[in-house]
Amino acid sequence: MKNIGNIRTDLALEAREALTNEQAPEIDGVIYKTEKDDIMEITTVDIENETGSQTMGKPVGTYITIESEYMRDNDIQAQKKITEALSQKLGELIKPEKNKKALIVGLGNWNVTPDALGPKVVNRILVTRHILESIPEDIRDSVGNVAAVSPGVLGITGIETAEIIKGITQRVKPDVIIAIDALAARSVSRINSTIQLSDTGISPGAGIGNCRTPLNEETMGVPVIAVGVPTVVDAATLVNDTFDGILTSMLEKNGYESQTAKSIKHICDEDKFDDILSALEPYSGNMFVTPKEVDAVIERLSDIIANAVNMVLHPVIDIEDVKNFSF
Amino acid sequence: MKNIGNIRTDLALEAREALTNEQAPEIDGVIYKTEKDDIMEITTVDIENETGSQTMGKPVGTYITIESEYMRDNDIQAQKKITEALSQKLGELIKPEKNKKALIVGLGNWNVTPDALGPKVVNRILVTRHILESIPEDIRDSVGNVAAVSPGVLGITGIETAEIIKGITQRVKPDVIIAIDALAARSVSRINSTIQLSDTGISPGAGIGNCRTPLNEETMGVPVIAVGVPTVVDAATLVNDTFDGILTSMLEKNGYESQTAKSIKHICDEDKFDDILSALEPYSGNMFVTPKEVDAVIERLSDIIANAVNMVLHPVIDIEDVKNFSF
Amino acid sequence: MKNIGNIRTDLALEAREALTNEQAPEIDGVIYKTEKDDIMEITTVDIENETGSQTMGKPVGTYITIESEYMRDNDIQAQKKITEALSQKLGELIKPEKNKKALIVGLGNWNVTPDALGPKVVNRILVTRHILESIPEDIRDSVGNVAAVSPGVLGITGIETAEIIKGITQRVKPDVIIAIDALAARSVSRINSTIQLSDTGISPGAGIGNCRTPLNEETMGVPVIAVGVPTVVDAATLVNDTFDGILTSMLEKNGYESQTAKSIKHICDEDKFDDILSALEPYSGNMFVTPKEVDAVIERLSDIIANAVNMVLHPVIDIEDVKNFSF
Amino acid sequence: MKNIGNIRTDLALEAREALTNEQAPEIDGVIYKTEKDDIMEITTVDIENETGSQTMGKPVGTYITIESEYMRDNDIQAQKKITEALSQKLGELIKPEKNKKALIVGLGNWNVTPDALGPKVVNRILVTRHILESIPEDIRDSVGNVAAVSPGVLGITGIETAEIIKGITQRVKPDVIIAIDALAARSVSRINSTIQLSDTGISPGAGIGNCRTPLNEETMGVPVIAVGVPTVVDAATLVNDTFDGILTSMLEKNGYESQTAKSIKHICDEDKFDDILSALEPYSGNMFVTPKEVDAVIERLSDIIANAVNMVLHPVIDIEDVKNFSF
Repeated sequence: MKNIGNIRTDLALEAREALTNEQAPEIDGVIYKTEKDDIMEITTVDIENETGSQTMGKPVGTYITIESEYMRDNDIQAQKKITEALSQKLGELIKPEKNKKALIVGLGNWNVTPDALGPKVVNRILVTRHILESIPEDIRDSVGNVAAVSPGVLGITGIETAEIIKGITQRVKPDVIIAIDALAARSVSRINSTIQLSDTGISPGAGIGNCRTPLNEETMGVPVIAVGVPTVVDAATLVNDTFDGILTSMLEKNGYESQTAKSIKHICDEDKFDDILSALEPYSGNMFVTPKEVDAVIERLSDIIANAVNMVLHPVIDIEDVKNFSF
Repeated sequence: MKNIGNIRTDLALEAREALTNEQAPEIDGVIYKTEKDDIMEITTVDIENETGSQTMGKPVGTYITIESEYMRDNDIQAQKKITEALSQKLGELIKPEKNKKALIVGLGNWNVTPDALGPKVVNRILVTRHILESIPEDIRDSVGNVAAVSPGVLGITGIETAEIIKGITQRVKPDVIIAIDALAARSVSRINSTIQLSDTGISPGAGIGNCRTPLNEETMGVPVIAVGVPTVVDAATLVNDTFDGILTSMLEKNGYESQTAKSIKHICDEDKFDDILSALEPYSGNMFVTPKEVDAVIERLSDIIANAVNMVLHPVIDIEDVKNFSF
Repeated sequence: MKNIGNIRTDLALEAREALTNEQAPEIDGVIYKTEKDDIMEITTVDIENETGSQTMGKPVGTYITIESEYMRDNDIQAQKKITEALSQKLGELIKPEKNKKALIVGLGNWNVTPDALGPKVVNRILVTRHILESIPEDIRDSVGNVAAVSPGVLGITGIETAEIIKGITQRVKPDVIIAIDALAARSVSRINSTIQLSDTGISPGAGIGNCRTPLNEETMGVPVIAVGVPTVVDAATLVNDTFDGILTSMLEKNGYESQTAKSIKHICDEDKFDDILSALEPYSGNMFVTPKEVDAVIERLSDIIANAVNMVLHPVIDIEDVKNFSF
Repeated sequence: MKNIGNIRTDLALEAREALTNEQAPEIDGVIYKTEKDDIMEITTVDIENETGSQTMGKPVGTYITIESEYMRDNDIQAQKKITEALSQKLGELIKPEKNKKALIVGLGNWNVTPDALGPKVVNRILVTRHILESIPEDIRDSVGNVAAVSPGVLGITGIETAEIIKGITQRVKPDVIIAIDALAARSVSRINSTIQLSDTGISPGAGIGNCRTPLNEETMGVPVIAVGVPTVVDAATLVNDTFDGILTSMLEKNGYESQTAKSIKHICDEDKFDDILSALEPYSGNMFVTPKEVDAVIERLSDIIANAVNMVLHPVIDIEDVKNFSF
């Protein structure tokens, strides 16, 4: 009965939520597990097979979500803990080893604040590929081989992001790609308070724009780890969900078998999504909802992600000196 | 029956639209007039008396709206025509005279793109107050006495904008204040394609934030002309309106006397606005909807407004050399 | 013989250096004292009377300079120590008391990176003036009454900064003004690694631009504490000083009484400064020298200064939670 | 006798100036020609053979320089003429043909204002490679096949720019590369008022940084046209040149055979460049001189270059609608 077709979310967590309820808490081919402390909640969604993948509308693989309201605040202690947790989970996906070469890819448009997360993280990555030779012998073994690029978006380059990264990959020959992107959430409450990791790669612009050739192991020839933060909610999705919420609450008040209930269900089944899109003209499908303070939060989230990536790839760096390090 | 209480719009045009329909096209105490060519539509809403003011929820005065889809495009010819029209309408409100001193106030927060219109216009104003003495004799008479400030927003200053401007006004002693601000529209189609002028002053932050002490003739002691462009739609307003639109279309399909119609009206009358706000948690009342390309459009609109203001205040400048001039 | 007339420096420390040497280490009416640890050096220059003031070309008062190369680096531990030292020295000048009202003024142009220090600090100040009533009773006594403004620069406003601040001061009625500005140093090595405090006020734009009406106790009616960081060296000053350095080293090699020495002194005495200015045409007096990484360093210095100011004015905040606090 | 070794200039025009004088106005293997009107001066320096290349320290090829003080001003008429001249000269170097594929490369760092020219031009390029299919039949023949990238700088990516562009080139297979970069001039008067074109390619970061693998026909496999604007003068070069200028004027006043002249020549021959670099510590070789208004001028120059490139590559666009076009 539920249909996720029109709904834009990049979070596996939310796709699962939309497909389950108290009566049907499980999805075939999908394993779900959660752990929680006073700072954050970490959820793992494993899509195990094609059945799960089809139901969820997402590729087979592991999706880890770190949720914490502290991401929105300027709380150094909480940020440290989130950075450490992110760094540990990233390590589980990347399995860093000596001499492993990493290419960090910052997706998104640096001119559009809520889409600038990827490029901002890239600016904070400690790249070493070009100076490995000149790093002091005694720490060289605990320093990774790291390069990073922000390829820009299709509308500015005229080139699919996957093509650009493929071309660079063929020359740089990394062992793993880590792609950072701003995402779209379905729920306003997850904006700027959620980080999703996955080993399935990513489709550039899936969040705020159209789907493109994905960056994944199949297209790139090396594993692609995706790290994303939802920074916006698609305006049409927000309207649709609020609408459904209010109608559902009406159904509950009026009883499911009443005449009202039936007409309300009728409304729900109508193609109301088209009406919503037309309310967003002339920007349909191209408007997003974002909080006022987005600029400051994006800076903070870029710090957290860049620090976690730097810690994973350069063992010499730990949480206490994560910002003190430069090669 | 219609209630504009929860709806956030800064446009008199939209307030009027919400209060009229085909059956009741007139509002007591409000005069409405429109002119149109192939580039733009200019609408004048005159709120004539207290009756009109109470119905509209806006002060007595003249509100002129210039609407043109060309504002969103990079079309130099259309921009020239819009600039000239804006300059002419501004002139009607300001009634510039020799030796009249103008203070331009750029409201809004320069760190938040859709709120940065005011400060961006101020950056482009040709200020002359400090150099009038040194301007060549032969053009001095056709140059105005212009100063400009961007006071910042309450959350950053801790001081009401009206207080700051009052303090500056008492020292600079302008004959007229022109206040520029980003506004909130109700309709997505008006975003970045509408300029509203009025002689009633303005409430800083009314668009995206709370109401504050207004800047108007009463508080400042000199006439305050407001120039605004809607750059966002409040997220709750958007959801509400889309909701109403869909329900209305249902009513039309089902007939107004059916059982369905009655239950639908029931939904409409419920306090659905609270449900909408709670869907926007934890950002309720603080999220806005904006198109992706907002950065470029704001630059363009700042050019149009600053050029029009410069033309009105400095008679020596005409549309052909509006950008060539610097003192 | 030495003449500081053409030289642009805002640092009392550098003015003193230019006027003393091993043979004449003291200046009449000026007391000098220095303390040093492994992180920073703190120098106090007290100009005690008119004699000292005239020689130094600076007003009577106390000038405290904190110098540390760590300001340029991203070293959290060193930053904490610098912040604490700055906060303590600020406290000595401000003498904060219960219910004392402070107005923070961010001088400079937010559109020009090396001049944006003041506005960037203002963005990070915890302003409370507008919400004092709503602060919980139990902490209200340890929270100050703080407002903040960034008035912009004369070229953009057409109004002298001192006039704007005077107007705001008359309405806000603070007990003390703290003015933050980017300064010009004479020595490249002091750029972005020095913070100067003084109780003498400040002349907006003295660093990169012309002298204007000062902000000081005389003009404002309340004490004005200045906090500044040199972010540029004036290009003409840099050329001049390098020139003198090389000629002096020639004199030392050739002996002071030789024919060469005499011709070299002749060169020094010529009005070479005009030649230097003409080499900087068409930008003479308007070019500055700045390092490439200026953007990142300015962010860091804004953090240090804003944190120190917040700690001094709000006793409830200490160094461990300086960034965690928001009211 | 003259030595260009220490001097940083990216302009062939300035390299030639440094090597010629009234007595020796010609360089073997270098042809020089100039044309001038009331708006601009266009100079062509042809380095014809290895002899010329070695003397000039630049590759064999054609260097065209457009100089105009109007580039610094906001003068629309002059900008149109400069854009048209640039477009024509670009056309001579690119020789555009039907179906020719162009890749525009914006070199430099978008986070450092005077180095952001390349990325800013790329943002304004009308890219079509991804939408050629959907362009209306009737204009398709007069629209080019254009892609564009801003690869970032080595310090941020860890990858030589030439490697990134080589990788992208191998996938996109353009027929010509147009590389845009900010340059370093030797003379302050050429900053932001000069555009240099050449068919010899470019070394990323040659202007403000170290030399890297060049982007040229040899390394890329397709012709590389370079377009650059000097936005800075290296601080050490500025000091050195001013120094030389003053000493030369001394020589002229004192006669070339006097004792003074000899000691002054001695000074000139000393390695004063080291003294200059040490005066710039701790930033030696990394400080640049730039005018205050750099931000606004860079925007304007990006417009001129992007418009000229768009006109050359898309015949459908002419100077009257250069900004009206979007596909």
